[in-house]
Amino acid sequence: MQHYFTNNTLSLNETFLMSNDIAHHFISVLRSNNGDKFEIVDSNHRLFIAEVIDKDVSKAKVIEIKNKSVELPVDVTIICGLPKKDKSELIVQKATELGVDHIIFLQTAWSIAQWKNNKVSKKINRLSNIVRSAAEQSHRNKIPDVKYLDSINDLLKESYDHKLIAYEESAKNGEKADLINSLNNTKPADSIAAFFGPEGGISPDEVSRLKENGYKTCGLGPRILRTETAPLYFLSSISMWFDLLK
Amino acid sequence: MQHYFTNNTLSLNETFLMSNDIAHHFISVLRSNNGDKFEIVDSNHRLFIAEVIDKDVSKAKVIEIKNKSVELPVDVTIICGLPKKDKSELIVQKATELGVDHIIFLQTAWSIAQWKNNKVSKKINRLSNIVRSAAEQSHRNKIPDVKYLDSINDLLKESYDHKLIAYEESAKNGEKADLINSLNNTKPADSIAAFFGPEGGISPDEVSRLKENGYKTCGLGPRILRTETAPLYFLSSISMWFDLLK
Repeated sequence: MQHYFTNNTLSLNETFLMSNDIAHHFISVLRSNNGDKFEIVDSNHRLFIAEVIDKDVSKAKVIEIKNKSVELPVDVTIICGLPKKDKSELIVQKATELGVDHIIFLQTAWSIAQWKNNKVSKKINRLSNIVRSAAEQSHRNKIPDVKYLDSINDLLKESYDHKLIAYEESAKNGEKADLINSLNNTKPADSIAAFFGPEGGISPDEVSRLKENGYKTCGLGPRILRTETAPLYFLSSISMWFDLLK
Repeated sequence: MQHYFTNNTLSLNETFLMSNDIAHHFISVLRSNNGDKFEIVDSNHRLFIAEVIDKDVSKAKVIEIKNKSVELPVDVTIICGLPKKDKSELIVQKATELGVDHIIFLQTAWSIAQWKNNKVSKKINRLSNIVRSAAEQSHRNKIPDVKYLDSINDLLKESYDHKLIAYEESAKNGEKADLINSLNNTKPADSIAAFFGPEGGISPDEVSRLKENGYKTCGLGPRILRTETAPLYFLSSISMWFDLLK
């Protein structure tokens, strides 16, 4: 069943006008008719089933409340040093499927890519659209947010219960337990953030500053992962831990 | 340090001629000189450090044996219903980084993509080159193999100790434990294979045939993953289980 999001709250038996985007996709593109059903998530992340009741005026009605959430029990942020080319698009799409809540792209010392000031809002818009589509396709109860920070100082103003740095040197040294230890200490509703360096890596100065501010290094297995693969490994591990093991 | 593979066996203090590919990349592209070092894995998956001793004739010498393996302790196969567009390229690159041993692309009933007979060897060549580069970049001790099978009958001739089907319906029904149960039963050196449907999904007939032949369905968390994301989740989970938890 198609899955959409609305910025409004919904309740059972309520009739509502489908947004232009939803009406365009469900009625014009998919050629749906009166009586056809779709999933819709309201601004409180609640999932409903709705039915088209008058397609000519894009009118629909909520016919069922679903008490179902596919969200992770923890609030997960990935912080990515600016990656090259269109890797940011791959990261946001896959991270959304894998359950991320917040995605931050950060200008770091060794980022080869740079986002010019006058391009940032356009890029964030584009990435947010990819995130919305991915959230619809993976039937999420919420749409992750994407933002850009241009310095580590701004990142350090953000507060998280658990803070990690995916660190290649940890993996090279055969470190195994730090990710597991952090997950062991993470309770439902806690927030957890993980930092991933760009292709050029994380500078020693950045690692020091992050560590001074409570970030802990951890390895993600012994193989060297590309900058866009590491967050997907991390998110898959979080899902395995909380969705399958717990 | 650069990381390469050779089809020969190597031993300490042996001098050898670098293959054309390695010489081209290390000497011509990277402009390395005599005395510059690189990692090289021989046909027995052993890792050595070698040093260029005469770059004009591409001669190198093995100067150190590294007793290091980044391979998973289990032999992992992913079987992917033919995906659309260039998703096969993304799958083989990321799966190699994440530690896969064997990748099979399978023509299934509901595959939207089709590989024409006269294109198969070209496609497999292209994918194998991507795999080799990814294996070099992630410093693997082996290069995964890639093959194409045009029917499920051929797949059923392959033998594995543990056989899984990543099944969306399992995830939708809130099934949580089947992947973990399978991993719990998997001992080092066992082989494990997982089947992932293409965009069109797995036909009920295929699920039945696979189940009759010992495949078990399992969910990969509650969110619906795209065909190219599911194997990456599976491989990350295998790595978390065997590289970090065990």
